[in-house]
Amino acid sequence: MQRHELEEKIIQTRSFLCVGLDTDVRKLPASLPQNAEGVFEFNKRIIDATLDHCVAYKLNSAFYESLGAAGWEAMQATFGYIPRSHFTIADAKRADIGNTATLYARAFFETMRADALTVAPYMGEDSIRPFLEYEDKWTIVLGLTSNAGHANFQMLQLESSQADLPLVPNLVKSERSSLLFERVIETVASWGNENNLMFVAGATQASSFSSIRSIVPNHFLLVPGMGAQGGSLADVVHYGKGEHSIGLLVNASRAIAYASSGEDFAEAAGEAARNYAMQMSGMLDTSEAVG
Amino acid sequence: MQRHELEEKIIQTRSFLCVGLDTDVRKLPASLPQNAEGVFEFNKRIIDATLDHCVAYKLNSAFYESLGAAGWEAMQATFGYIPRSHFTIADAKRADIGNTATLYARAFFETMRADALTVAPYMGEDSIRPFLEYEDKWTIVLGLTSNAGHANFQMLQLESSQADLPLVPNLVKSERSSLLFERVIETVASWGNENNLMFVAGATQASSFSSIRSIVPNHFLLVPGMGAQGGSLADVVHYGKGEHSIGLLVNASRAIAYASSGEDFAEAAGEAARNYAMQMSGMLDTSEAVG
Repeated sequence: MQRHELEEKIIQTRSFLCVGLDTDVRKLPASLPQNAEGVFEFNKRIIDATLDHCVAYKLNSAFYESLGAAGWEAMQATFGYIPRSHFTIADAKRADIGNTATLYARAFFETMRADALTVAPYMGEDSIRPFLEYEDKWTIVLGLTSNAGHANFQMLQLESSQADLPLVPNLVKSERSSLLFERVIETVASWGNENNLMFVAGATQASSFSSIRSIVPNHFLLVPGMGAQGGSLADVVHYGKGEHSIGLLVNASRAIAYASSGEDFAEAAGEAARNYAMQMSGMLDTSEAVG
Repeated sequence: MQRHELEEKIIQTRSFLCVGLDTDVRKLPASLPQNAEGVFEFNKRIIDATLDHCVAYKLNSAFYESLGAAGWEAMQATFGYIPRSHFTIADAKRADIGNTATLYARAFFETMRADALTVAPYMGEDSIRPFLEYEDKWTIVLGLTSNAGHANFQMLQLESSQADLPLVPNLVKSERSSLLFERVIETVASWGNENNLMFVAGATQASSFSSIRSIVPNHFLLVPGMGAQGGSLADVVHYGKGEHSIGLLVNASRAIAYASSGEDFAEAAGEAARNYAMQMSGMLDTSEAVG
């Protein structure tokens, strides 16, 4: 999916919601088979119920891999079930040396037909470039994550002589990156562009969005951590919206898929997604007016 | 597998070779089916031919995932085929927030029955701890990787005020970490111990081993990059061996599995593994005498 298609979808749906299908076989309603087939059935019903209120779906591969090959089938079947009108993200956080990264790209972009794959940055340029070479596909690189552990390495202060390297010439010296996650975003941004690259930006760090936006004013940001992980939608939009468009995909997983643990799970999920979309609709007005 | 079992296996086999089963379906000999079944058959014959000369096998998950669910089956079948006498590594470079990391642990430690899983450090403590909680299982964290991209982030210089934090009290100030990969190893080492934690240390950076060994003198290091990626075994042992034991698993993938592209691939792989083991046998003598 191309950027203009995603942006049109957002304007048309009046929502920038991404529904996370992190479906745990141990939390399926009793009426569904407690296996990979049940997971796929659960996903289908969540998708049917939320389709009108969201623009994207994100599947975290760990939930499917924990079920072995049958889980892998359920992940692929779910990607196949989502209409091509919606943006699809394989949240697999892969990365490996160049020739191996190419195989991950094949797995998720070709076999799964996902529009986007999340990628971890630690291994550097040749672990990320193979993903960027796919036309109309997106690489979503971990920038600042929403978990507590982001403080261990992502927030490390870099030595100033390196932070001053002129990687982004249009920034004045005082704005140049000095924390690791800033350097990661700045460096990775130079390998791709606004049409094939997004960044993960954790919603529990709303104030850090200002810093991220000073580096990538117009890239899409994938924002996890709404709902169960905490994080305010108003803050995310206030600090995180892009310069020329909303530039945000805000993800909710448990808050939607597990809105009810009973047999009305799909209805409750639809209702939860609709509530998010209604909030987002008002923010889009504001954002478009400001932007 | 426990540490003393791995060390006894090394002494008994007189080898610290890890055979990488990065089996590319597009490189299978013509006599094998060109699909996931062919991959499993290829692996079985490589395992049979190399079993006496190595102590470990490493499967890179990308090669199997590129074949979809059938590839996942082939990966699981291969782990099942390797005798329990040998140490098994799922080279999947996973990491996610806590509850999701637990699902990856379930996938690789329980379903696959791998002894060890490689893990990327960027997301920090809660993305790594769930793996460390598994008894008799190993977490192998990326420290310094062997690809060109290691220079982008792993070699970044940290600000000195942070590098001086007394995380490892027995180091004098001048020895304290100042590059990102050193900080990663130092910090992660404080979350586990020598019996459940290893680090990936790229063999193309032999001189960096001295620095790694000053931080973790006795942890096992997994050394990729022998053979096709270049890197000298003598250098690795000289700079990288542990204080009390060899403390190294040196991996070769293509140099063994693709020693011949013809129908004699298994015989050639056995011969290549035997050659590595013969070199290692002499180095073990030296190492044990020194250590």
